[in-house]
Amino acid sequence: MANEKQGKVYLVGAGPGDPELLTRKADRLIREARLLLHDDLVAAEIVALAGANAEVVNVGKRCGQKRITQAEINERMIEAARRGVEVVRLKSGDPAIFGRLGEELEALRTANVAFEIVPGITAGIAAAAVLGLSLTDRRTASRLLIASAHHAAEHSGNEGSSQEKEDWSGLVNGGTTLMIYMPGHGLAGLREELLSAGLRAETPVIIVSKATTHQQQHTEATLRELGAGEPLPAPSVLLIGEAVRRASCEGKPEEISALLRDADAMLATDA
Amino acid sequence: MANEKQGKVYLVGAGPGDPELLTRKADRLIREARLLLHDDLVAAEIVALAGANAEVVNVGKRCGQKRITQAEINERMIEAARRGVEVVRLKSGDPAIFGRLGEELEALRTANVAFEIVPGITAGIAAAAVLGLSLTDRRTASRLLIASAHHAAEHSGNEGSSQEKEDWSGLVNGGTTLMIYMPGHGLAGLREELLSAGLRAETPVIIVSKATTHQQQHTEATLRELGAGEPLPAPSVLLIGEAVRRASCEGKPEEISALLRDADAMLATDA
Repeated sequence: MANEKQGKVYLVGAGPGDPELLTRKADRLIREARLLLHDDLVAAEIVALAGANAEVVNVGKRCGQKRITQAEINERMIEAARRGVEVVRLKSGDPAIFGRLGEELEALRTANVAFEIVPGITAGIAAAAVLGLSLTDRRTASRLLIASAHHAAEHSGNEGSSQEKEDWSGLVNGGTTLMIYMPGHGLAGLREELLSAGLRAETPVIIVSKATTHQQQHTEATLRELGAGEPLPAPSVLLIGEAVRRASCEGKPEEISALLRDADAMLATDA
Repeated sequence: MANEKQGKVYLVGAGPGDPELLTRKADRLIREARLLLHDDLVAAEIVALAGANAEVVNVGKRCGQKRITQAEINERMIEAARRGVEVVRLKSGDPAIFGRLGEELEALRTANVAFEIVPGITAGIAAAAVLGLSLTDRRTASRLLIASAHHAAEHSGNEGSSQEKEDWSGLVNGGTTLMIYMPGHGLAGLREELLSAGLRAETPVIIVSKATTHQQQHTEATLRELGAGEPLPAPSVLLIGEAVRRASCEGKPEEISALLRDADAMLATDA
């Protein structure tokens, strides 16, 4: 309306890391973009798909590096679109899941700049696929709850209390698979919260680090063992629930579970 | 091990419908497959990507048509893989989310047939993207709960009671966005369950039918109005929560909400 040559901002999911898990649309838009603003976590092979004449900017907000504020990112997108430029704002995984998409959408709407969201494969779903797991199961899991451990931490900060607990009630009866992003440290605290919400100590737990990349690692355990070992490198995602048991059945964690079952009966917690 | 020429089964997500939302990997595997077994809901343009020499079979299980049983699908995949064939088992959306993946994985594992899961964009996440919505929001929604209305119905059947209610507790405090697949009819019942779980009557609700296809339709309302109108054509997905409010703010549903607010205060339900 304001300008015949007005550009557009594409808010694009880059998927979990493997360039073959880009959507065809994301692939095309990245190659065509004149300005590519990408998060720090987007794989280098994906950023490298940008055309030779594209301007490529890492707007990642990792601690310790020069920070580009959210306001600066917004401004940059809006200014370019107003000059008639097609902008790709590339976020790892899916932009609508813990991608801080809300703030950027608000800024673009307020500035009356055209935009489009292009979904991507979110890391947790990719992690399950690589490990050969279903996330729902007609027999054991009718729901998938995607949550962020980071959010909890931020909230605690806001409220001035690091003891605030997440509410996990309603997880047990429904047969819910839990997918928790950015668990980082705090795994022991999470274990206690989930146990007191009524989740069984033998519930299978899988942590996947850098899913679908060459550095992918994972560990399998039970809820009881969560937080016992060294945390895997970030970014990682946690899968918890009966639906992810099948994989565990094949390895030793099931044996560990069996060994620990007696101990569990003795402890006999609440819930 | 059993056979040098043993094939492999790729359990592939076809995404929500738009062929551009296929992953590059799904695209490649569909083109290369010698046997393509696809669900009824997979878009015709996507099935048409199969090579000229591929055998393409619709194994969809829609009511009213000749049914191919799950056992027959399993047998077909296993038999082909043992003959050295690369099989693509193509499911709409993401195979691990309400894709009945569990049964097929079990069969393949038992038969000792090599397989790989290729994730896809699930319909609800695509629906949110098309409508310009974030699913999580730092301020209003720290979680996304993906659930199936179908499952509830099946459960009721099993228990011999059509009155069984889903447990939605824990939705309210956490600031959870709800994504409900296959809501079909029963929307009024769902509304009552969510209201009694404590969700506010003004909570924004969006129903998206056939997301990302040429037949896409959506309606926006509030939880109070859920189930009042004619249901949209299947498959559809329901998005509920404060995080999906932004779109509603722009249209008339917000005005409806304002008009209904007084009535709500009078009704003043429990929770």
